[in-house]
Amino acid sequence: MLGCGRVALDKKYTAGKLDVISPFVQALNPLFNPRSIALIGVPRGLKPGKVFLLGLMDQGFKGSIYLVHPTASEIDGFKAYQGLADIPDSIDMVIVMSPRQSIWEVLDECLKKKVKIVIVYTSGFSEVDHAQGKKDEDRMREIACRGGFRVIGPNCMGIYSPLSGLAPFPFMPKETGNIAFLTQSGSLMNLFINMCSLKKIFFSHAASYGNSCDVDFSELLEWVMADDNTRIVCSYCEGITDIRKFVRILQKTAGKKPIIMWKVGMTDAGEKAAASHTGSLTGQRHLWEALFRQYGIIQVRDIEEMLDLAMGFSHLPLKGHGRVAVISGPGGPAVSAADAVEMNGLTLAKLAKTTVKRLNELLPETGTAKTNPVDVGLGASFDLRYYFDALEILTNDPNIDAVIILGGGVNDEMNEEYVQGIIRIKETSDKHIITIAYPGFIRNEKILEPLHENGIPVYSTPERALKAYAAMMRFYHFQKSIQKADS
Amino acid sequence: MLGCGRVALDKKYTAGKLDVISPFVQALNPLFNPRSIALIGVPRGLKPGKVFLLGLMDQGFKGSIYLVHPTASEIDGFKAYQGLADIPDSIDMVIVMSPRQSIWEVLDECLKKKVKIVIVYTSGFSEVDHAQGKKDEDRMREIACRGGFRVIGPNCMGIYSPLSGLAPFPFMPKETGNIAFLTQSGSLMNLFINMCSLKKIFFSHAASYGNSCDVDFSELLEWVMADDNTRIVCSYCEGITDIRKFVRILQKTAGKKPIIMWKVGMTDAGEKAAASHTGSLTGQRHLWEALFRQYGIIQVRDIEEMLDLAMGFSHLPLKGHGRVAVISGPGGPAVSAADAVEMNGLTLAKLAKTTVKRLNELLPETGTAKTNPVDVGLGASFDLRYYFDALEILTNDPNIDAVIILGGGVNDEMNEEYVQGIIRIKETSDKHIITIAYPGFIRNEKILEPLHENGIPVYSTPERALKAYAAMMRFYHFQKSIQKADS
Repeated sequence: MLGCGRVALDKKYTAGKLDVISPFVQALNPLFNPRSIALIGVPRGLKPGKVFLLGLMDQGFKGSIYLVHPTASEIDGFKAYQGLADIPDSIDMVIVMSPRQSIWEVLDECLKKKVKIVIVYTSGFSEVDHAQGKKDEDRMREIACRGGFRVIGPNCMGIYSPLSGLAPFPFMPKETGNIAFLTQSGSLMNLFINMCSLKKIFFSHAASYGNSCDVDFSELLEWVMADDNTRIVCSYCEGITDIRKFVRILQKTAGKKPIIMWKVGMTDAGEKAAASHTGSLTGQRHLWEALFRQYGIIQVRDIEEMLDLAMGFSHLPLKGHGRVAVISGPGGPAVSAADAVEMNGLTLAKLAKTTVKRLNELLPETGTAKTNPVDVGLGASFDLRYYFDALEILTNDPNIDAVIILGGGVNDEMNEEYVQGIIRIKETSDKHIITIAYPGFIRNEKILEPLHENGIPVYSTPERALKAYAAMMRFYHFQKSIQKADS
Repeated sequence: MLGCGRVALDKKYTAGKLDVISPFVQALNPLFNPRSIALIGVPRGLKPGKVFLLGLMDQGFKGSIYLVHPTASEIDGFKAYQGLADIPDSIDMVIVMSPRQSIWEVLDECLKKKVKIVIVYTSGFSEVDHAQGKKDEDRMREIACRGGFRVIGPNCMGIYSPLSGLAPFPFMPKETGNIAFLTQSGSLMNLFINMCSLKKIFFSHAASYGNSCDVDFSELLEWVMADDNTRIVCSYCEGITDIRKFVRILQKTAGKKPIIMWKVGMTDAGEKAAASHTGSLTGQRHLWEALFRQYGIIQVRDIEEMLDLAMGFSHLPLKGHGRVAVISGPGGPAVSAADAVEMNGLTLAKLAKTTVKRLNELLPETGTAKTNPVDVGLGASFDLRYYFDALEILTNDPNIDAVIILGGGVNDEMNEEYVQGIIRIKETSDKHIITIAYPGFIRNEKILEPLHENGIPVYSTPERALKAYAAMMRFYHFQKSIQKADS
């Protein structure tokens, strides 16, 4: 028996703080690593439900894939079985695209087939009619409980796991990384992961869990917090039904890995929208914000901010005291960066005397600034040595933890050289080096790729970089305070 | 006599509210439309000071360009005169790149030559040594006053004006638009204008005025507020010396055109950075924010936000009541957009009954939402008709002022069709239509170009779009309140 929904899980947790992952959460392992998958209700042609099959084929799923259709014996050339019972193999995961009215019959088949995981893409439950939908969702959970399987959804896209060759959409990245993404919105899974891949940031696993009638955010969170392949957790969340369970997971796991959370439905308007999207009960903004503070969860407010944080945590090891130095060619963004350092509660590093001396030797007398922020002047766009030497000097200053560098050359060739120069210096430095690809400066995104590949974060503005860096440093302090309390 | 710096200007203004532009500001006309330009101190080869000559050549300046060099008779093949006096022509504008120590001699030559405008690129004044620098800058203004010319700078890049073929950098756009950009940072001029050109947003004029020893932000603001080619004003500002003069200009011009202001140096750290960048005295954050509120100035906090506002004001005529409807394929960003509507003080439009009826007829029963935000479901990515018909329905709802649409197809070809469909609907609608090119959805920027060309704003996230739209609506209300008070 693989777990029995919400009730049993709650009982287990009342036993108190657990150091090992609970068996109920271990039961989720086949969710991220199924051996065989049956797709029920795959449509003919290019229709929405087809994305699951296309996703698995594109991702190169190594296990067995079976199509099930009540009447057709083939779908677009692939063999189709009439029912789960007809498949001459055991089935770990079922993905259900069938119409709503057939869902009970399908779940009954799953029960008989002794499957482990059922992903219900089918929608039209609590997000359409809250009262009746919740009843139906309770019934799904009860069936799962009886059958010893777990249900993800309904109204969800299920799992992306490049490690296991799982994807609910075609053209998702095949590369693996160490970020997990838990999202109530399936489309966002696709969008966010693709957006990150452009910056060479990749994922361990992702789960779209929709209305979460059985497996919910808290369980998925516990699983990824215990997963060795995951170092960072991102989440898009509309609502959580069992807030006590969520708090218990946070109590166990807080500070172990950064949790970056985009919590929507924080206003009346958002609350109503969430209700008709995943049937979530949201609201209670202040309660949520208190939870974030107490458990060191990093709150973000849009997809760009979530990316900014994911990139920062991916590339920069947590350390230091948040003392920031800024190097800029253009003087304007340097001033604005200094504002952003202070507004975000970071410290504009006080340069060591030898640093100032060396900067004075390096930079032209006028049109530059040898204090922090360091303005290397317009001349640096023509002679990149000013950028490189200034970066070298600052990375050797013991009063500095992070250097933000904003610049570039006058053409693509020089920009390529600029990128390589920064990578070279990063290789021998233990400081945080953060680059700014200021809009209009380095216009060709391709040129920035080596930075991403070499683990150097690239932000579009210093304001965005510093906001993310400050959030990282706050998490780092939170983590240290937890570790201190634990020891 | 063309004007006499700060003192005379102050006297003029104490006369009270002026309805016509003052003659002192009219005297700035040659700044944006010189007939002849002399460049003093152009370096050989590709060095920073060369950008002015390259800029004028690249922009195709129609007037006469003369190079001046104390010893060389040619520079990179161009004829050079030994002094201004040797040029057999009258000179409207002089751009000075000479070393700091030669500045007095050069200004004396300008005085004798009876030039109209002197742009001092040369730096090393109040931004390096505040006390001595201010003395030198006062002396520059006095000489200008005596000579009947105006000085821009020192430590600045001067003027960009595609209407007149002026540019201080090569490769700036040749297209003209209706935005003016006033900036203390010269590099930002180049960066912001290039960044905007990628979105097909163009400029009437721009001025980089650096330490502003003579012509200052207030005068430039008055000039662009009166300029028929300018409809929107953007500004990057570190500090203003004569705040009373600034307030008088605002009293005269407030609400006439939107002023989008990126004011830096708002913190201690930023204040120090600004002092060593343009010698500006900044600070007094609360005073500034009170000014912004009182005179309807739109405050932005980074270059992306400035672009978001410039794009919105460029494309959307001010009207309506801020009642927003959202159409989205992915459900997640739709919920987040609903939050953003409310958080920004806008109204999530209550759909008319017929609208809801028509949406119910259009959209599949499940996996969609027929309330606002309208979730057209995953199916819309496969059949764009859902997007187009929903947009058509919403643009015909009298309860709606603006429709935010977030979507796309499953491949580039469909995305091109999606873009064309939106343009088609916009052509027959008087509503504000705002598109969201969600990261990871339409990845190819080229595909979005027709939207920019057809005056449809494109934002990366609904959060950014709604923040900008809310600021526009606040300005619109401010403008109406001013007009009411005036009538």
